[in-house]
Amino acid sequence: MLTTPVKPEQKIIRVLRLKVLDRPGYFGRIASRLGELKANIGEISIVSQGPDFIIRDISVQIQDDKHLAVVVAGIDEIEGVQFESVIDPVQTIHEGGKIAVRSRVKLESLADLRKIYTPGVAQICKLIHKDISLSRQYTAIPNTVAIVTNGTAILGLGNIGPVAGMPVMEGKAVLYEQLVGISAVPILIDSADIDEIVATVKAIAPTFGAIHLEDIAAPECFEVERRLQEELSIPVLHDDQHATAVVVLAALLTITQRMGIELTECSLGVIGLGAAGAGIGQLLQAFGVKKLFGADLRQDALDRWKSRGGTPTDLTGVMKNADVIVATTGVPGLIKPEMVREGQVILAISNPDPEIDPELAITCGARYAADGRTINNALSYPGLFRGAIMANARCFTNSMKIAAAHAIAGQTKMDNLVPSILDREVHQHVADAVALACADHEC
Amino acid sequence: MLTTPVKPEQKIIRVLRLKVLDRPGYFGRIASRLGELKANIGEISIVSQGPDFIIRDISVQIQDDKHLAVVVAGIDEIEGVQFESVIDPVQTIHEGGKIAVRSRVKLESLADLRKIYTPGVAQICKLIHKDISLSRQYTAIPNTVAIVTNGTAILGLGNIGPVAGMPVMEGKAVLYEQLVGISAVPILIDSADIDEIVATVKAIAPTFGAIHLEDIAAPECFEVERRLQEELSIPVLHDDQHATAVVVLAALLTITQRMGIELTECSLGVIGLGAAGAGIGQLLQAFGVKKLFGADLRQDALDRWKSRGGTPTDLTGVMKNADVIVATTGVPGLIKPEMVREGQVILAISNPDPEIDPELAITCGARYAADGRTINNALSYPGLFRGAIMANARCFTNSMKIAAAHAIAGQTKMDNLVPSILDREVHQHVADAVALACADHEC
Repeated sequence: MLTTPVKPEQKIIRVLRLKVLDRPGYFGRIASRLGELKANIGEISIVSQGPDFIIRDISVQIQDDKHLAVVVAGIDEIEGVQFESVIDPVQTIHEGGKIAVRSRVKLESLADLRKIYTPGVAQICKLIHKDISLSRQYTAIPNTVAIVTNGTAILGLGNIGPVAGMPVMEGKAVLYEQLVGISAVPILIDSADIDEIVATVKAIAPTFGAIHLEDIAAPECFEVERRLQEELSIPVLHDDQHATAVVVLAALLTITQRMGIELTECSLGVIGLGAAGAGIGQLLQAFGVKKLFGADLRQDALDRWKSRGGTPTDLTGVMKNADVIVATTGVPGLIKPEMVREGQVILAISNPDPEIDPELAITCGARYAADGRTINNALSYPGLFRGAIMANARCFTNSMKIAAAHAIAGQTKMDNLVPSILDREVHQHVADAVALACADHEC
Repeated sequence: MLTTPVKPEQKIIRVLRLKVLDRPGYFGRIASRLGELKANIGEISIVSQGPDFIIRDISVQIQDDKHLAVVVAGIDEIEGVQFESVIDPVQTIHEGGKIAVRSRVKLESLADLRKIYTPGVAQICKLIHKDISLSRQYTAIPNTVAIVTNGTAILGLGNIGPVAGMPVMEGKAVLYEQLVGISAVPILIDSADIDEIVATVKAIAPTFGAIHLEDIAAPECFEVERRLQEELSIPVLHDDQHATAVVVLAALLTITQRMGIELTECSLGVIGLGAAGAGIGQLLQAFGVKKLFGADLRQDALDRWKSRGGTPTDLTGVMKNADVIVATTGVPGLIKPEMVREGQVILAISNPDPEIDPELAITCGARYAADGRTINNALSYPGLFRGAIMANARCFTNSMKIAAAHAIAGQTKMDNLVPSILDREVHQHVADAVALACADHEC
């Protein structure tokens, strides 16, 4: 078996601020040295220029703090280069938070004030009081989505609490605004109690056009979502379950089309039956996949899989039986090279580290492989919610999710498994497809 | 007794879109006719210009829809003027809501995405998980205020529910952002149950730096505020009670200084002991006013007034005994001209219609008089919250409220009772004063 070296994952980004002699050749020396030191160079900018020197910010991706120390020492040795400081751009960008509530109207004169506030505002209140559906026209409510978390399953970090999870919620809100123009409001609930979470979200629901549940641990997430959707007449979606599933389905549509086979004829194996794994199983079953193998260390997860029509087994069983493997365990390197069978499709989507590196999986015979950098639910949730809001939907149906997956697959360009998250048009296509597929009688 | 005619309150604003012959004199005819028709002219703008005509938007304040019909008919008669349409600028400005959640960071490249979202964001989550106080630095939480309402006492409109109250909450949020840069998130709770409101706000409190309670009816508002402040370690303030009281105190500081008397020596009379009235009594008592007369139709309100050291009486008793009258009943014209005594100070602050028109009160012998257009809590709440956030306060103390009132009075220019709401510097002065007066041991 081949053992090609796995590409080192560069974990942290730092900006090196350097004072460099302003002569030809000096920057080249820095760039070469950074390469020798295994620092990947990113953005480069000029901060200021002196009579005979330039201050430059050079963004580098490196392994860890130890690696950073080596890089800094190596750079500082170069003649004509003076090391100034290390800036952490991730910390800088988080200073003061990543989102803000802003006015959509100007406030420059008393005339403005009298329109947006007293006395003018009373007229709009009265209109809505007479016909509550006018709140869709005259308030921010329909375009505002609550991103609700209790912080029990934040990224790959686990139960770190809702406040420590806030940067993720703000990140999601940034994507909402930038990609589809939705106002997203993080709502942090410090409770693992299902009743309390449901009661709280129900109580504040009049404020929002839809509810986005985020990073709530399994199995609580299943009941929280089910009960909220049952009791509210606005759409409720647990991102981790369904938005990830939509992107997985989209990638599999593209892959099976390129392989010239039918996805519904493939056997699916899901490793890790938490929120994401359960959602993937459910959506692929709704799509028409008939053989679904599932593995998990928790018996209740296996029981749930079985009750929904899947076949419970173990890691070996999944790898042996399934054509298409999706792993969502959060355990890096769980899938060993010798487990991979020739021609398998392997999506190992745990973040930040996959169950098997895609390049390694391909080397071991997999036909297609991808990790969580590719299969990112940010490709689907903005369009899912934008579409549901456009259609004034009361829930998210399987048809809407499958339509979203088809839209994503339809926007995928040659050689990619999915389109770019930053392509605004993709999200618009997803939204349109979701809105078109909305049929409230299914709720 | 003189009976000067009360200035008619122009209730609604409309924009008349007119096609006017582009010749000297035509606009003058329109302006004169509007004056004859008792329409107050506001902003005038040119929408477009043709070969021999101009399309103009003329904003007018008028009485009601009947008045509008008369004005439109009167304008349409003028030769060379063609009436095009009536636009309601208040409705236009409310289309789609008045606020939005926006990103504070750019999202243009994958490098941006990796900093604000996965994988970069995990580093910030870990920092906060280790030291939760870092959420002040790296999240939007400290600068975000929840504007919580259940819609039971919206403006002068009463219990119209939280959704119909949303335009008011959005208006407050616009002022927060525009005046002091605070992110304010309306939270609508459809419940009149104290336990449910308290439990809900407590559950979502980790999301916010402070809680602004708004338009919650008395007497529930008192217990909601008390219990929330008791159980949370972030500042909680019921706007209607305390922000209004601060502006009343500020106006009275200015008035008594101009009269050359001490406010603490004056007797105060409050008519209407709901949220605003109770808050005013409480703050003026804390300031040092000793004689406090109060009138209300509800026995429980009078009992509360008495339990807090005031003297319960009735409308006649207040008008007979007090030097300074503050009316907050919501009953237009409640104070009859014959009740006013020479030299009294009368603040009739119910919105949109005062208990007595200030001009009429002056005519009847009052030394100073003002209504809710002048005594507007928007002068104080932005600075109160900005100051509390700056100081990382755990509650609002009387010292902070009194400091805010002094700051407002200190910024008041000759001939005015209070400064302009739109003067950003005033709010900065209030915030600085509040932060300086903050001493957490008082919480």
